[in-house]
Amino acid sequence: MLTPSLEDYLEEIYRLSLSAESIRVTDISNKLKVSLPSVSKALIKLNDKDYINYEPYGNIRLTLKGNAFGKFLVERNQLLQEFLSLICSKCDISVEAEAMEHYLSKATIDAIQGLVRFFKDNPDLYQQFRFYSESRSAEAEDRSP
Amino acid sequence: MLTPSLEDYLEEIYRLSLSAESIRVTDISNKLKVSLPSVSKALIKLNDKDYINYEPYGNIRLTLKGNAFGKFLVERNQLLQEFLSLICSKCDISVEAEAMEHYLSKATIDAIQGLVRFFKDNPDLYQQFRFYSESRSAEAEDRSP
Repeated sequence: MLTPSLEDYLEEIYRLSLSAESIRVTDISNKLKVSLPSVSKALIKLNDKDYINYEPYGNIRLTLKGNAFGKFLVERNQLLQEFLSLICSKCDISVEAEAMEHYLSKATIDAIQGLVRFFKDNPDLYQQFRFYSESRSAEAEDRSP
Repeated sequence: MLTPSLEDYLEEIYRLSLSAESIRVTDISNKLKVSLPSVSKALIKLNDKDYINYEPYGNIRLTLKGNAFGKFLVERNQLLQEFLSLICSKCDISVEAEAMEHYLSKATIDAIQGLVRFFKDNPDLYQQFRFYSESRSAEAEDRSP
C-alpha cells in the first residue's frame, strides 16, 4: 500500500517511462513541482518497496511490479478524468481527478468504469443525458437572480 | 472552510438535531466513536467558527450558519450513498461516501446530482444500465479462473 504522495510519484514515473529512454530526478521534480531532495527521498522509498530500481545519481527503472501498478494508476486517473468530463462537472478536471483518485475503492473505480463504458456503448442514451444536463443548467441559470 | 474532521462533527450534530431536543457531548462521542475530550475540543472550534453555540457542560445548539451547512453535509453524504448504490459499486457504501465526500468539489457534487436525477427521472434507461452492469459482472465472473 502506497501513500497518496508515493502513488503520485509512481504515476509520474510511469508516464515518463512511456516517452523517455531514461528518467532523471530533475524530470520528476519539474513535472511534480517538488524539490530535488523530496524526489530523492520518495525514490528511495519506492526502491525499498520494490516498485523501482534506483541508486542515488543513477538511473530510475520501473520493476515489473512498479510497471504494473504505475499503469493501473495512470489508467485510473484517465478514467476519472473521462468520468468527470462525461457527467459534465464544471470543475478543473485534472485537479479533481488527482484529488479523487486516492480515496476511491477498487469496487467504485470498477463501477465508474462500467458507467463510462455504458455511455460509450450507448451514444444515443448519452445524448439524452447531455440534453437533460444542459436543460437543468439552463433552468438553474434562469432561476439565478 | 472546515477540516474533514470538523465536517464530520457538524454532520453528526445536524443529524442528531433532527431527532433530539438537546444534543449532549456523549451522544456525539458514541456516534463518532471518539473520546469525550476530543469531542469537546472539536465543539470549541465549531463554536469559535460560529457553526454552533456551545459552552463546556452546557447545551449544543446549531447557529443558522451551522444548520445550513450541516444540512448541506448530510444531503451530500446521502447523495453520494445514492450515487454509489445506483452505479452498483460493490463497496461498503457508507464508508466510501464518508471517504469521498470531503474531496469532491461543489461542481462535481452538482454533476453527480444531475446523473442521479437523470436515472431517477428515466427509470427505463436506468434499467438498461442495470442490465448492462449485470451482464458485465456475469462476463467478468465467467472469465475468472
